[in-house]
Amino acid sequence: MADYVAPLKDMRFVLNEVFDIRSFWSSMPKLAESVDAETADAILEEAGKLASSVLFPLNREGDEEGCRLEETGVKTPKGYIEAFNTLAEGGWYGLGGDPEYGGMGMPKTLVACVEEMFQASNMAFGLAPILTAGACLALNSHGSDELKQRYLPKMYSGEWTGCMDLTEPHAGTDLGIMRTKAVPQADGSYKLTGTKIFISWGDHDMADNIIHLVLAKLPDAPPGPKGISLFLVPKVMVNEDGSLGEPNSLSCGSIEKKMGIKGCATCVMNFDGATGWLVGDLNRGLNAMFTMMNYERIGVGVQGLGCAEMSLQSAREYANERIQSRSPTGKKMPDKEADSIIVHPDVRRMLMTMKSLVEGGRAFSTYASRWLDMAKYAESEEQKAMAENMVALLTPIAKAFLTDRSLEATLHGQMVFGGHGYIREWGQEQLVRDVRIAQIYEGTNGIQALDLMGRKIVGSNGKLFEVFAQDVADFIESCAGDSAMQVFLSPLSASLERLADATETVIERAANNPDEIGAASVDYLDLFGYTAFAYLWARMAKAALPKAENDTSGFYTGKVKTARFYFDRVLPRAVSLAETIRNGSSSLMEPQINEI
Amino acid sequence: MADYVAPLKDMRFVLNEVFDIRSFWSSMPKLAESVDAETADAILEEAGKLASSVLFPLNREGDEEGCRLEETGVKTPKGYIEAFNTLAEGGWYGLGGDPEYGGMGMPKTLVACVEEMFQASNMAFGLAPILTAGACLALNSHGSDELKQRYLPKMYSGEWTGCMDLTEPHAGTDLGIMRTKAVPQADGSYKLTGTKIFISWGDHDMADNIIHLVLAKLPDAPPGPKGISLFLVPKVMVNEDGSLGEPNSLSCGSIEKKMGIKGCATCVMNFDGATGWLVGDLNRGLNAMFTMMNYERIGVGVQGLGCAEMSLQSAREYANERIQSRSPTGKKMPDKEADSIIVHPDVRRMLMTMKSLVEGGRAFSTYASRWLDMAKYAESEEQKAMAENMVALLTPIAKAFLTDRSLEATLHGQMVFGGHGYIREWGQEQLVRDVRIAQIYEGTNGIQALDLMGRKIVGSNGKLFEVFAQDVADFIESCAGDSAMQVFLSPLSASLERLADATETVIERAANNPDEIGAASVDYLDLFGYTAFAYLWARMAKAALPKAENDTSGFYTGKVKTARFYFDRVLPRAVSLAETIRNGSSSLMEPQINEI
Repeated sequence: MADYVAPLKDMRFVLNEVFDIRSFWSSMPKLAESVDAETADAILEEAGKLASSVLFPLNREGDEEGCRLEETGVKTPKGYIEAFNTLAEGGWYGLGGDPEYGGMGMPKTLVACVEEMFQASNMAFGLAPILTAGACLALNSHGSDELKQRYLPKMYSGEWTGCMDLTEPHAGTDLGIMRTKAVPQADGSYKLTGTKIFISWGDHDMADNIIHLVLAKLPDAPPGPKGISLFLVPKVMVNEDGSLGEPNSLSCGSIEKKMGIKGCATCVMNFDGATGWLVGDLNRGLNAMFTMMNYERIGVGVQGLGCAEMSLQSAREYANERIQSRSPTGKKMPDKEADSIIVHPDVRRMLMTMKSLVEGGRAFSTYASRWLDMAKYAESEEQKAMAENMVALLTPIAKAFLTDRSLEATLHGQMVFGGHGYIREWGQEQLVRDVRIAQIYEGTNGIQALDLMGRKIVGSNGKLFEVFAQDVADFIESCAGDSAMQVFLSPLSASLERLADATETVIERAANNPDEIGAASVDYLDLFGYTAFAYLWARMAKAALPKAENDTSGFYTGKVKTARFYFDRVLPRAVSLAETIRNGSSSLMEPQINEI
Repeated sequence: MADYVAPLKDMRFVLNEVFDIRSFWSSMPKLAESVDAETADAILEEAGKLASSVLFPLNREGDEEGCRLEETGVKTPKGYIEAFNTLAEGGWYGLGGDPEYGGMGMPKTLVACVEEMFQASNMAFGLAPILTAGACLALNSHGSDELKQRYLPKMYSGEWTGCMDLTEPHAGTDLGIMRTKAVPQADGSYKLTGTKIFISWGDHDMADNIIHLVLAKLPDAPPGPKGISLFLVPKVMVNEDGSLGEPNSLSCGSIEKKMGIKGCATCVMNFDGATGWLVGDLNRGLNAMFTMMNYERIGVGVQGLGCAEMSLQSAREYANERIQSRSPTGKKMPDKEADSIIVHPDVRRMLMTMKSLVEGGRAFSTYASRWLDMAKYAESEEQKAMAENMVALLTPIAKAFLTDRSLEATLHGQMVFGGHGYIREWGQEQLVRDVRIAQIYEGTNGIQALDLMGRKIVGSNGKLFEVFAQDVADFIESCAGDSAMQVFLSPLSASLERLADATETVIERAANNPDEIGAASVDYLDLFGYTAFAYLWARMAKAALPKAENDTSGFYTGKVKTARFYFDRVLPRAVSLAETIRNGSSSLMEPQINEI
């Protein structure tokens, strides 16, 4: 497989040329303090080097070796400890963290690029920093000053990591029925007892302590989701002076054998009267957890993106090097036994589909991150409110659409290799296995679609859609005089119209039949995603067109041609989705159980 | 995961009620000799038992243990040898074989059902019988009487197995550039030297001998595909009296570590002056090999189908047992903590999609097999010619569309399990990993699409499409007076029209630009597949409707409702495919290599 090369030029294109991110950063006073163009460039450059030279070389072997559970806990694959320390020394775990507690305060628009590089080069490892960052965010948003003082600095520094403990054997999507108990103690702490499963990086040997954010219920809590509270439970107790004390009463009971991300330990965690502290308000744990989940859902979308980028890099290299058969229009490499397979239209279809999805995905994650930054750093309440709406709308799409398209991309990337794609040493099949979990965890993509369709679209009576539609309409209007853009604008308008129709249809029907929400949800999320990618490809074309004229590198002309490819060969999928949504829920709900 | 239960009722529905297969069999004198209704029923029943009780119990463990290469050759997972012998004793390896050499002469329409059960219960193991059957077919069609006498009876009996050796490290799709040499000897035999890779079941410990059908070139052969010949090369030399002699000069150099089908050894085979015999005419090896490939391509489609069926069985059981959240329309199981997840529209979407694809796929494989039987057994030349055309047309679709839809189905099946779908012990992720190879080997699905679009459709100037279109049109006409069928017939007609348009468009454009073939091929194959499934779902609805009225079992009403689901929620995909095809090759072919 190809060595990972950080796509810095593509990232800079999106940040600077599509989103003019420097002006955006400097327009937010608090952000302007932490980041300037030079720092951002240096961070991207350095992250790319670490990804290529530290994380990527461990990826293939980590998959083969996997983690193992020994008497003293989980042991990570060879080289993981050193890599973890290298990143800690560079301060990478606190990149987006609160400067008040030792974080670097970098904007999500920049952090997402760094995350992409870490995930692309080693997704199993890369989960550790995003879980830690998410845990820090929840703690910083909802924890007491004392908890923040005690824990955040060491988590930002990489001395300790964070993870989240939600799922129980019988309760995954439906957290309301969880059974883990938290019993209040006289000193204000709680004793937690119960079993949590699927805890990514719930145990390991890379850091001195692991900070679990655990959902549990008090003995007298109200039933259902309104009785859930969030607790901070350290693996090792922390003394008053911040030094480590006795082990807490929790342990990793086993680790799962699974399809992929084998370098990451997925733990069953047993809490046997473990000491913990409440984070946020009693019975408001889901609220606090969603701070973390929302952050990580975009992070999971970026994980997908990273895998897809790595798969594209390998497939592109292979398609250029592998010779097999001749071009349908005559020999292209007459001095060789056969032509490179990149001459074949169907191989190009796979590569261009990958490229349009990966680069569209990167633009989308930057677009979503920009709203996240605005929600956090904007000074005007109006801006903040609008940004919060956009974040609410875009988060499930970022998680689900990016990971769905990334599975598609890695499947193409595997197929470009033919039989070699199925063999482990070439690496393409690992990317398929790894990226698959991104569709499943942090709320399955089906749950994301329900969140979008039910809570966000129907729940806002379409208002959240209007915010997005206005943004697209403003862009279309801004291009009014640009004749080169017309080829993109007319299908973009049609696509937005189609999405608006679907939005209206589902809202109307849901008023009488709540099943219409779940019947439409996945197709609606896809329809939204393809429309959003069309918008972003139009924006990328607009940014690239002026530079394409004298471009001999292929970079800008490639952007314009990929935009055209996207509109010609990918966007048409939206037509079918709209039709399927129109066909409604009856063929789904009429079958009796014995008819399925 | 659920235990495998052979879907005998569904198979009998397709065979007897949709295709009236008994009348069909008895209309072919040669077939009527070998098979009657009672025998066929007994065979299905017994195959189902073997699949459930012998093959399925080895599936999960075989994946964990895998094959290993020892000094004396490949060792199969625990239990494989015994299972192999059980099937041999039952005569299952000769089920479709020529009775003149000890085969049972059963029609493909029946054999395909048996294959489905063996693949569903254990795909890695199930490859051995279909490879052996394919090798026997090629040998029987092209080999000399002497070779047939010597090898076929022992391959049908399961004393020996067969495999095919095509791919070389640098030559997969492009067999014309292969390098394995065959040097003629004075006694009429050949000495073969070279390396072949990706040889499924190229070595193992389940049978006494392995008969390799190897493609190679004579030293003075013409360049390219017209210089390839086919040779029979046994692992162990066979004496005049049929007993085994010395080992031949070939060996398994290594076995691949791969994504799935780990219970099957994928071998690198080294031929070091190995003795072989020509099968068929010199330099016509590809022709002989295609006899085998065509047979196996349908078999590979059926492999996909089997995995998808197994995934559906597990997902259906899980969706009924797993409780999580409440139905959007109110509690359905008030006495439980939550409702079964089968109440949720999106879970139903996944299950119904799986069911419509699996049962549509079974009808399709039976439809294709029926033409294969007719091509082999029809007495009239006209019938034979028509059937051969249909086989040529349907083979690439059976291979690619069935396996593509099967990957889709197993991905849904995995997602129904949520996080548990990613864990190995639940079995769903294995089905995803296993079925993935079916899209890649025996000619990648991209190559199948090129075969369909280029050789079959454009190559026949649309005539082969017309044969299929007439069959559909005849069916539509036959339903003219049936009011209950109108809901299916009008979208079916529209879909056929759409396919006819696409056919015409590509043929026209290809006359001036050969790249249009490869640019349209994969989408065209999908468009064809969805249309064919619509045709078969309409036929299934027609067969089920009269019985649905008084059906309390849910079987027949379920068929009708699944047909409706297919037309409502799956067939609309065809609209987008038609649009993508219309958009042509330019956005694919215009990018320069540095722009991709």
